[in-house]
Amino acid sequence: MSDLRPPEHQVAGHRASANKLGPLVDGSGLFYKPLQAGDRGEHEVAFYEAFSAHAAVPPRIRDTFFPRFHGTRFLPTKAQPGEPHPHLVLDDLLAGLDAPSVADIKIGAITWPPGSPEPYVAKCLAKDRETTSVLLGFRVSGIRVVGTGGAVWRTERPEVKALDTAGVRRMLRRYVSSVSGEGADCALAAAVYGGEGGVLSQLRELKAWFEEQTLFHFYSASILLGYDANAVSATGGVGGGVRVKLVDFAHVAEGDGVIDHNFLGGLCSLIKFISDIVSETPETPPLGPS
Amino acid sequence: MSDLRPPEHQVAGHRASANKLGPLVDGSGLFYKPLQAGDRGEHEVAFYEAFSAHAAVPPRIRDTFFPRFHGTRFLPTKAQPGEPHPHLVLDDLLAGLDAPSVADIKIGAITWPPGSPEPYVAKCLAKDRETTSVLLGFRVSGIRVVGTGGAVWRTERPEVKALDTAGVRRMLRRYVSSVSGEGADCALAAAVYGGEGGVLSQLRELKAWFEEQTLFHFYSASILLGYDANAVSATGGVGGGVRVKLVDFAHVAEGDGVIDHNFLGGLCSLIKFISDIVSETPETPPLGPS
Repeated sequence: MSDLRPPEHQVAGHRASANKLGPLVDGSGLFYKPLQAGDRGEHEVAFYEAFSAHAAVPPRIRDTFFPRFHGTRFLPTKAQPGEPHPHLVLDDLLAGLDAPSVADIKIGAITWPPGSPEPYVAKCLAKDRETTSVLLGFRVSGIRVVGTGGAVWRTERPEVKALDTAGVRRMLRRYVSSVSGEGADCALAAAVYGGEGGVLSQLRELKAWFEEQTLFHFYSASILLGYDANAVSATGGVGGGVRVKLVDFAHVAEGDGVIDHNFLGGLCSLIKFISDIVSETPETPPLGPS
Repeated sequence: MSDLRPPEHQVAGHRASANKLGPLVDGSGLFYKPLQAGDRGEHEVAFYEAFSAHAAVPPRIRDTFFPRFHGTRFLPTKAQPGEPHPHLVLDDLLAGLDAPSVADIKIGAITWPPGSPEPYVAKCLAKDRETTSVLLGFRVSGIRVVGTGGAVWRTERPEVKALDTAGVRRMLRRYVSSVSGEGADCALAAAVYGGEGGVLSQLRELKAWFEEQTLFHFYSASILLGYDANAVSATGGVGGGVRVKLVDFAHVAEGDGVIDHNFLGGLCSLIKFISDIVSETPETPPLGPS
């Protein structure tokens, strides 16, 4: 517990500091997410408790696409000295990755659950329209890429907020590129997005579940993508640790027998973007001038 | 042309009268839809022209799921005596059905295209939230069912506007029931919704196209379902004329390389509702008390 620190791979949300609560990791594979203010924190705990125990959730879906939930714990924080704050205890989704490249993508054209107070609806709707959420059914919240030689490239918040369709496409290409800087060679597209166990095949498995499941509506949840840039670059894919996980459940609503068409539509849109990138990319990176 | 009259099977939209423009049929298989005011009418004509000629639209999709477009024509109307009004000339989608049972279902949680004026967005959004559009990704606009003995049952407008999730489920069951009145035996569910060429199989073919097509975004369009109640009742399905058609294209927007996640999500939701009804329904109607 003495090793608690903000995760260095965080790409979205507040970073823990003297002024703000933020997530912490302990280096042993756990991720501590401070409970959000108001009823959001309790709502997220309630979701994890219900979801973890739900007999109708296939174990394969739970284990593949969701962080494991280990209860809650009070922890000391820099933002509230002397006043321990409750945290969700979850698996650190990037544990075991030597050089994690990470993308956080908020899914759904609509990010406010039914029954939200009007000012909250108005705030979300404005953000959903200003960003690509309404048009594309998702928005990129942040990306971190480890390029050649270990150089890290990451998005800044004003930049991701201003992304249009072309910008989103650029980010999703950048995420699987091995160069440092702004370029995008998509050298890792086939290994990370394509193939068995790649992002596309995992997203399609998730989609099949969303076509059937009527238990939960995941308003404002994100898909977190991760892979090990070192391993993928070295081996061309094998052991690259490619993962697709759902995160952020403070606004999950009950499904009441209806599918989550809002999440599903955005997921299909993301699948199309990624499959376009795979189709456009040759299996092996193009040779440079000889 | 002397036989122009309002279609007796109309379930949604304005009915042609001395006060209102509305669609007309001529009994020879054509359907005349008055161009809407403002730029909507011209917009719909422009869509039909672009869609009819578009090389990237598979002929099978165009022929199966869309009315054929025969240009525009000025026609005399009761609402504007002496002042012929331009009409879209389309195939009458219910032509050839002896006893048409019809459902009009508006698809999509969002019914306003991007770039709409704010008052229009606010008006649509209010309606989308009051009805089931936001929650289910679609709303039932109207249903007409021909029951045993030819008795016609149809929805009234205030009733469909007030439908909740359970009400939508009731309507979709009612649509494939042979009884007259309010009951729902789902006697025709297997024949109309299930099986080869049934509604479900057609909707799934449409869905496969929407997972790929990035040409058009069909804001505020409807799916029109039709079948011949006499033929289905008599034969149990063969020759029942089951059809699935898209209609109402005044708010179609260009896809610009992005899928229509809003239509696709609603379509998946409708597919789940209908497949639930088929699963719950035995292949043959249950026997009454003996």
